[in-house]
Amino acid sequence: MSPVTDAPNATLSAITDEEIFAGHLGGKLSVELTSPLETQRDLSIAYTPGVAQVCRAIAKDESLAKTYTWAERLVVVVSDGTAVLGLGDIGPRASLPVMEGKAALFKKFAGLDSIPIVLDTKDVDAIVETLIRLRPSFGAVNLEDISAPRCFEIEKRVVEALDCPVMHDDQHGTAIVVLAALKGAAAFQGRPMSGLKVVVSGAGAAGVACANILLAAGVPDVVALDSKGIVSSDRADLNEIKADLAARTNPRGLTGGAAEALAGADVFLGLSAGTIDEELIASMAPESIVFAMSNPDPEIHPEVAAKYAAIVATGRSDFPNQINNVLAFPGVFKGALDAGARRITEGMKVAAAEAILGVVADELAADKIIPSPLDPRVAPAVAAAVAEAARAEGVA
Amino acid sequence: MSPVTDAPNATLSAITDEEIFAGHLGGKLSVELTSPLETQRDLSIAYTPGVAQVCRAIAKDESLAKTYTWAERLVVVVSDGTAVLGLGDIGPRASLPVMEGKAALFKKFAGLDSIPIVLDTKDVDAIVETLIRLRPSFGAVNLEDISAPRCFEIEKRVVEALDCPVMHDDQHGTAIVVLAALKGAAAFQGRPMSGLKVVVSGAGAAGVACANILLAAGVPDVVALDSKGIVSSDRADLNEIKADLAARTNPRGLTGGAAEALAGADVFLGLSAGTIDEELIASMAPESIVFAMSNPDPEIHPEVAAKYAAIVATGRSDFPNQINNVLAFPGVFKGALDAGARRITEGMKVAAAEAILGVVADELAADKIIPSPLDPRVAPAVAAAVAEAARAEGVA
Repeated sequence: MSPVTDAPNATLSAITDEEIFAGHLGGKLSVELTSPLETQRDLSIAYTPGVAQVCRAIAKDESLAKTYTWAERLVVVVSDGTAVLGLGDIGPRASLPVMEGKAALFKKFAGLDSIPIVLDTKDVDAIVETLIRLRPSFGAVNLEDISAPRCFEIEKRVVEALDCPVMHDDQHGTAIVVLAALKGAAAFQGRPMSGLKVVVSGAGAAGVACANILLAAGVPDVVALDSKGIVSSDRADLNEIKADLAARTNPRGLTGGAAEALAGADVFLGLSAGTIDEELIASMAPESIVFAMSNPDPEIHPEVAAKYAAIVATGRSDFPNQINNVLAFPGVFKGALDAGARRITEGMKVAAAEAILGVVADELAADKIIPSPLDPRVAPAVAAAVAEAARAEGVA
Repeated sequence: MSPVTDAPNATLSAITDEEIFAGHLGGKLSVELTSPLETQRDLSIAYTPGVAQVCRAIAKDESLAKTYTWAERLVVVVSDGTAVLGLGDIGPRASLPVMEGKAALFKKFAGLDSIPIVLDTKDVDAIVETLIRLRPSFGAVNLEDISAPRCFEIEKRVVEALDCPVMHDDQHGTAIVVLAALKGAAAFQGRPMSGLKVVVSGAGAAGVACANILLAAGVPDVVALDSKGIVSSDRADLNEIKADLAARTNPRGLTGGAAEALAGADVFLGLSAGTIDEELIASMAPESIVFAMSNPDPEIHPEVAAKYAAIVATGRSDFPNQINNVLAFPGVFKGALDAGARRITEGMKVAAAEAILGVVADELAADKIIPSPLDPRVAPAVAAAVAEAARAEGVA
């Protein structure tokens, strides 16, 4: 999920605290029955003694759990509460409203049942082990709001351990939507992705994943920035993840900070909670593209960025070109589950980005490089494309 | 849950396999939204950026999770699939239809949200540890269909580890309903519980719990039977649980088998999947009470038992006096959660039994010692009594 900060902002100003808390009263989810339980006959079918027939059938052939239980299509939204929005490590209980919201979005946009699972441990081994033990209870795992660099190891190990779709949305959901939006911007401008010089500001979960998907999509010149400056191979302070990132990015061997990275760059991707000076945006190449995605306060106000940039996007609903993960995750998981995919591949993610863009391909404009988060056409299109990619790649 | 066997039976004969499997297609549960997510404004309240306000509030005061999330009123139905119905150790996936049915009953009778959690481990330490890690995700634990004697240790350790209501329903749900029915039978016959000689056939989860609740309810003469005969202190083959049971039961020091136990007994409680010979029922004291609760095949056909016994009950819906756990668990958990109880005490269980009986106290008859499982008056009465007991005992 995109970061937010404590500061007041325009989007919230119209919505009172009272409204917000009222909207969360009792939580945002309920479990309902899909069959009636009114009569003794209903009870004999759904529960004892009828249920024993279904149990016996699954005991003989476990694959029938997919047909006769909800579990194999259930998405668990899993967090340890260590990197919630821009609020940081607020703990599993305080992360629950986000996880419930996410589960609600899975239902709303993809029709998928989803429940929050928040864990009272930050230990990587314990988190992985717990999900292995819970495996028969669900059909897919959406990892959420887990701090970097732990999130990278946790996702890698859970993907390896489980035979079902697993995705850390803060990484890949963001990367998919950013790729869709950047392809939309480049298509509108009529220039190839391979010609873009891209600066990724932030080398956490989202930044690393965005850099990776851009490299995979054929953008050769990606430069990453963290709080210390350009992530370059000459730095001695890089953890394993950033050292790997440095080895694969920064082809011109830049050193320094944001100023050095942005001078002459075509694209700025803001994926940290920081700010960026107006002069640095001014120093970018002509026809530049600025995605200031920090939430609720963009790294630079979009109207200021627009003085220099040809295309501006934010994470906010009150400006054009909103970059929001909800464009990706419902359809990605639906497509993976529809296809019976055992994992979510890079190809499926790229297919998702192309499907998102496809919805507005004929309507592209500087202020419409990506569909609205509420556009009902998106999730079905993404699901179909992801399912097709899963089958094509042989993971289904 | 009461045991069932593979044999065909009258209750099922009217319901086709086709109907049963159709009733389970896609599972029996769905997750739904409790607030709208139609507009950008809805999204801003339920999800980003509004949700951050609620997260921050809970981070400051964790008790607010009870007000603004679903978790603290969510009941998890937890099983490892080792003792499912009478089918035995069929594994977690095959147990799911039972757990979904249970979750559906929680909603139907008590309005509680509930989800199945089935675990791919039989290790006691692992099960306890997993529930500790999951604690912020739920508000109460219904342990289900876990084999004896592991179920005793698991329940004990989970109760100790968690500050929320925990109950192994196969033990205590059954015990509560049996106590209610036996009190109903004794009340109808006008004799005191303290005068009853009771034989409990089966020393597994349900048998041990029934023996315990009867002792607590003032029945001094309880004799337990397992597959080897009377559970008596002179036996060398008893595990820790059964040795403890032997020390507290069998006050007349009987030895032998079912024949020795039943001669002159007032009450037979069948809680195993076995059968009992007609002559043994005939050997009981006059005005005897027979609960033949094995499902779907009672230990003795109720019409045969009625030749000798004054009152007969079974687990079946097609005979009078159906003993069904659904009379207890929805109201017990609702009452405990309503009161904010940190655990479920013996006093709360006895209060539940009395509340179940109270619903039909003015209508008692030989064929109506307990309400129907579908009687909508039961769960609210049980919940109110359990909540009151929790407050009286100071666990709320």
